[in-house]
Amino acid sequence: MDQAVRRMRLLGLPGSLRKASYSRAVLRGLKVELGAATEFEIRDLRLPLYNEDEDGADAPEIVRQFRRAIDQSDGIVIATPEYNHGIPGVLKNALDWASRPLGRSVLIEKPVLVMSVSPAFTGGVRAQAQIHETLLAIPARIVTGPQIVIGNVAEKILQGRLVDQPNLRFALSAIDRLAAACNVR
Amino acid sequence: MDQAVRRMRLLGLPGSLRKASYSRAVLRGLKVELGAATEFEIRDLRLPLYNEDEDGADAPEIVRQFRRAIDQSDGIVIATPEYNHGIPGVLKNALDWASRPLGRSVLIEKPVLVMSVSPAFTGGVRAQAQIHETLLAIPARIVTGPQIVIGNVAEKILQGRLVDQPNLRFALSAIDRLAAACNVR
Amino acid sequence: MDQAVRRMRLLGLPGSLRKASYSRAVLRGLKVELGAATEFEIRDLRLPLYNEDEDGADAPEIVRQFRRAIDQSDGIVIATPEYNHGIPGVLKNALDWASRPLGRSVLIEKPVLVMSVSPAFTGGVRAQAQIHETLLAIPARIVTGPQIVIGNVAEKILQGRLVDQPNLRFALSAIDRLAAACNVR
Amino acid sequence: MDQAVRRMRLLGLPGSLRKASYSRAVLRGLKVELGAATEFEIRDLRLPLYNEDEDGADAPEIVRQFRRAIDQSDGIVIATPEYNHGIPGVLKNALDWASRPLGRSVLIEKPVLVMSVSPAFTGGVRAQAQIHETLLAIPARIVTGPQIVIGNVAEKILQGRLVDQPNLRFALSAIDRLAAACNVR
Repeated sequence: MDQAVRRMRLLGLPGSLRKASYSRAVLRGLKVELGAATEFEIRDLRLPLYNEDEDGADAPEIVRQFRRAIDQSDGIVIATPEYNHGIPGVLKNALDWASRPLGRSVLIEKPVLVMSVSPAFTGGVRAQAQIHETLLAIPARIVTGPQIVIGNVAEKILQGRLVDQPNLRFALSAIDRLAAACNVR
Repeated sequence: MDQAVRRMRLLGLPGSLRKASYSRAVLRGLKVELGAATEFEIRDLRLPLYNEDEDGADAPEIVRQFRRAIDQSDGIVIATPEYNHGIPGVLKNALDWASRPLGRSVLIEKPVLVMSVSPAFTGGVRAQAQIHETLLAIPARIVTGPQIVIGNVAEKILQGRLVDQPNLRFALSAIDRLAAACNVR
Repeated sequence: MDQAVRRMRLLGLPGSLRKASYSRAVLRGLKVELGAATEFEIRDLRLPLYNEDEDGADAPEIVRQFRRAIDQSDGIVIATPEYNHGIPGVLKNALDWASRPLGRSVLIEKPVLVMSVSPAFTGGVRAQAQIHETLLAIPARIVTGPQIVIGNVAEKILQGRLVDQPNLRFALSAIDRLAAACNVR
Repeated sequence: MDQAVRRMRLLGLPGSLRKASYSRAVLRGLKVELGAATEFEIRDLRLPLYNEDEDGADAPEIVRQFRRAIDQSDGIVIATPEYNHGIPGVLKNALDWASRPLGRSVLIEKPVLVMSVSPAFTGGVRAQAQIHETLLAIPARIVTGPQIVIGNVAEKILQGRLVDQPNLRFALSAIDRLAAACNVR
């Protein structure tokens, strides 16, 4: 019988909504590098503000889609800026939705790789620390190893995607660790 | 000449949108205690998701109203739950809007008192730590002193407002420190 | 052939040096509960202050012993108070020694369970968050699941060890998760 | 009567004990720039490990000296590396000593400026965040404004002191804010 290896399915979540978002550009660059061997959906985090009153069986359809996309993925790649020394509200809001229902979140045990980008030379490590602590709360499975921090990101992007080879190589080595955690056969 | 003392104007920001939000109930309890001597507006954080593309001169009207409310207040009282070991996305999103424009935020030097509530016995101190770091980034003026943490909050609320006397006294002593920082004459 | 299961070896690290340390008492209580089936060494963190000049081949003997104890353990249990809203200096200093040499630390991939204790009702979750971020930096392997936070700890201790059954059960369930991560055959 | 302005007294605390510590070199560079108009003591943080059993009236002499030095200063300048994504144990240990006795710490209301250094391009902002939260716990008075982060620090030091002019100017502007908070007449 054919034991075909199925393609790994990754879900990329950019922490910023800007049309020219650096985070999305980084994810796009990775998607191109990974090529057809990997399904790589990049999904904007345009969700309603979290409200427990609106959660439950009747959660908004877009939230249910978001949760399904996480559930059907083998692993998650978060690429995010840092806003005001912390996680962007947009991203935390999405994680707040994804974290529910308590104890049955689609993120539980899901491998998650976090990377941060910055137009400045520092690169969002406080945002990463806050994301880590939230992922541990759920708990999702944090992909460890050298932190992916892409500073001066503006000059490393061409036509809406990361093209800087050293940073692409570095980030792809982290994707390898994510893939190892995904246990796709 | 009569040098009339004007009323202090406080702006209360609850970190949760639930109709029966504990955070809003705490703010309502404080408003009742403070009485007519203090203007105390409680304002929900129903704002669009932060998007730099939509910021600037054409920022959404509701965002401009929010910034004006901060600007016209003498001080801010944030009452918030902790979501997933961190700041609620709803609250961070509001702070992300309030933090801009960079260097000209209405929060700069604005006195801010942070308190947290929790239905459990611990009470949201990680959310407070993240809020602190964001306030320092702006920088707003953090009101220091014993941290206001209201655990087991559900049983301390009656008809939509905090009625537990020890917690009210404790929180009001922090409001006193906030008032001292406000320098209202 | 006899495939003898060897005993699991745990290393317990209390975050405080006090003779009557609650952290050590919690570890002692767990050691008693685990019984003879588990080797459980409790080791004080009396180490010199970290100084890179004194590290390397000539690191102080007590530091080399500490590193060996980590290396020879299957997993680590940290029990710690929170000092000034953060990790105790004593504990961070020990982790700083254990984290070296860079890239070859004995903590790399080592399963670590973190629990916190407090004489107050809150219980040291900020210390835990800081420990998590440091463990991810190394990276050690954080044992996830419901956070073990032992509040009002003073009244749960008898003759120098934790005797409170609900807390012992809760902490032992986390030790089970640690054991699963240890892969002792 | 002569109302002589007395010199401002600053206390510089380097977060690392290395002989060739970059943190100390930064403090030395600032001391030279400030010149004779400012007393600037740089004090190593070689203290015993914090142990509540040894604190109190009989605290070690070196600890009492450390507390006196803080008490007699107008303001504190902390320069520190980041160890393992957090505050160095050496520095946290010193802050743990300085934070006591509870409610009567010499750091209460003391203006503190925090800066971080790093041989890499990122510069220790997570250490700064942890220090902030600890200073708020005491509470000391955090000097706000643009964060002083000195990356690639090794190449900016000559003969044991920071000589890089842009970084010196930037750090001195923060010292100005510290001086304003010190209210020396």
